[in-house]
Amino acid sequence: MRSAATGMSAPHANPTEPDARRYARLPEAFAMWRGGTLHGGHVAYETWGRLNRARDNAVLLFTGMSPPAHAAASPENPREGWWQRMIGPGLALDTERYFVVCVNSLGSCFGSTGPASIDPATGEPYRLTFPDLALEDIARAGHELVRSLGILRLDTVIGPSLGGMVVLAYAALFPGAARRLVSISGTAAASPFAIALRSIQREAVTSDPAWRNGQYSPEHPPATGLRLARKLGTVTYRSAAEWAERFDRQPIRADLSGSTPFGAEFAVQGYLEVQASRWVNAFDANCYLYLSRAMDRFDLSAHGDPRVVLRRADLAEALIIGVESDMLFAIAEQRSLAEAFQASGTATQFAPLPCIEGHDAFLVDTERFGRLIGGFLAG
Amino acid sequence: MRSAATGMSAPHANPTEPDARRYARLPEAFAMWRGGTLHGGHVAYETWGRLNRARDNAVLLFTGMSPPAHAAASPENPREGWWQRMIGPGLALDTERYFVVCVNSLGSCFGSTGPASIDPATGEPYRLTFPDLALEDIARAGHELVRSLGILRLDTVIGPSLGGMVVLAYAALFPGAARRLVSISGTAAASPFAIALRSIQREAVTSDPAWRNGQYSPEHPPATGLRLARKLGTVTYRSAAEWAERFDRQPIRADLSGSTPFGAEFAVQGYLEVQASRWVNAFDANCYLYLSRAMDRFDLSAHGDPRVVLRRADLAEALIIGVESDMLFAIAEQRSLAEAFQASGTATQFAPLPCIEGHDAFLVDTERFGRLIGGFLAG
Repeated sequence: MRSAATGMSAPHANPTEPDARRYARLPEAFAMWRGGTLHGGHVAYETWGRLNRARDNAVLLFTGMSPPAHAAASPENPREGWWQRMIGPGLALDTERYFVVCVNSLGSCFGSTGPASIDPATGEPYRLTFPDLALEDIARAGHELVRSLGILRLDTVIGPSLGGMVVLAYAALFPGAARRLVSISGTAAASPFAIALRSIQREAVTSDPAWRNGQYSPEHPPATGLRLARKLGTVTYRSAAEWAERFDRQPIRADLSGSTPFGAEFAVQGYLEVQASRWVNAFDANCYLYLSRAMDRFDLSAHGDPRVVLRRADLAEALIIGVESDMLFAIAEQRSLAEAFQASGTATQFAPLPCIEGHDAFLVDTERFGRLIGGFLAG
Repeated sequence: MRSAATGMSAPHANPTEPDARRYARLPEAFAMWRGGTLHGGHVAYETWGRLNRARDNAVLLFTGMSPPAHAAASPENPREGWWQRMIGPGLALDTERYFVVCVNSLGSCFGSTGPASIDPATGEPYRLTFPDLALEDIARAGHELVRSLGILRLDTVIGPSLGGMVVLAYAALFPGAARRLVSISGTAAASPFAIALRSIQREAVTSDPAWRNGQYSPEHPPATGLRLARKLGTVTYRSAAEWAERFDRQPIRADLSGSTPFGAEFAVQGYLEVQASRWVNAFDANCYLYLSRAMDRFDLSAHGDPRVVLRRADLAEALIIGVESDMLFAIAEQRSLAEAFQASGTATQFAPLPCIEGHDAFLVDTERFGRLIGGFLAG
């Protein structure tokens, strides 16, 4: 597959799998936010809908930490995407009206350059020689993609979770580059509670002997550490109330219970096991470590007084969404973010949602999110 | 040291350390709640104040998962105890008035028989051959201790956290054995959220190669798994609001930051590290696994309709305390427990406390807890 915009061939495509990814080259020498330079990097992306003649109907979607750019099905890849019920004709991100672009984060492992990619200078994977990664780098890689598509100004930049932080970096770095902004379950700076939870997950990976200081082979990843990290991640993405409804104290399904000492006994443990198993086989450990730490380190105020930074961003409107049951990105954080937008003079809507699914509500309660975001975009 | 009540010698006492522990023998063959028999077991305990002639002024204190029986200083051991500001003359557990007895849980590793103890049948530590442990066994071991002291009826049985569950098992198993009950930050049955969090901690231990299926030597415990488990435990014992106040995004103290890849950068990570290091050197991994699982498995309703069970317990009064910021034992659980007590016809006080310290508030906000519990006991 070749990208019309860049003529690049797909570096990781498997010809037997449907694949809608295109690729945008980054500048040959891409100076990273915290120092270091990435050479010959690129980002993978997918699109839905059509860019209009005025090139002013584009919506750029940044993802959470682990999803790929495949947010929805398309003719090239009919598989369901991670935000399938949100993107399409007549849906919240209405592809009859908008040209929707979803970018795989720089540093991830689903087509964009990251620690698992081959370093052209050595012919070996970067692993821990990948330069320090900041959310600003992810924002800028998305911006380079937008420019490569000939788009001068986005209609909207939008993202959930990690993406809800990246849109803030985008606004800070590229004044005037988006007319509107939607931050979903994000934060201006990670709380110590979120840092604690993520740092334990990273430690689970780095203390797995199979991690080998990042030198594991793709066939032998630090599966034990990744499994623990993902199980803990899954807990933080949901809520106690949802699980009380969903699992209560039901016993585990017989086919999921093991016979090891202290093995799983309750249904909720089976759920964690299924979530973890899927992820261990899909996500690269070093990429995970880089992305996770980048979330801890991000702080909008590093760009200056947020009110000043956000005024300079020159947004016509902002929508800040939070979920009351979110334990990882607490509702108080979205509230104070919305207040900073308001104080900057931006027309801001703050939507605290009563969903019980916690941080992941944007993936689950798409009816509520769809109404809200669709209404905002329809303006 | 010899116990007046039992004449037993202290099995684990280090003669160079101050030690106020006494020991009570369990029946030679102690039938465990879930099957199996423990032979020649005992529990360690400490006391403060004096048993009166009527033997009706005793308060039995069960602990949380990890503390020893040393809840407060005494002439035999002047070191500060884990509930120092709550036990003493004029304090909430007023030793001018009450004879306070704190028992180390059966299955723990601070003097009571547990998986780290020597099995008299083999001369080797029990490790995983220790019989299945239930909170009912901990309750019954406490009851055997009380009987060995010649006490027919406790004035009050009280416990926080795991102890807040054990007091319910005590009430269910021994009708009339206590006049009053105080359950602090406990629950009638662990929620799926708490089960998820604890099961991840156990998996961190059991997936550490150093655990060796329980066959580690005391000199080489599964330190990596224990460290991860305790860090996660510490997160669940506190609250996001407290840490935002206490740590915000302050950098880690220089002496705590390592130079390893993805090492700690924020103050909150240093705090976790200090907590974990203390614990790894103090607590036995197998004991931890047994106690943690016992908490998941406990369900008051296994004893029958809680209203019936609690009516049969024949308590004059109950005080159920919860903390609104507790994420591990959510306030809704203490509320519904209090409702079950009320429905049983027990005179019940429910105290939802607005502390910000989460589950651990009983260890930190002792002023508030002291007023409440002292008032209840004096009342």
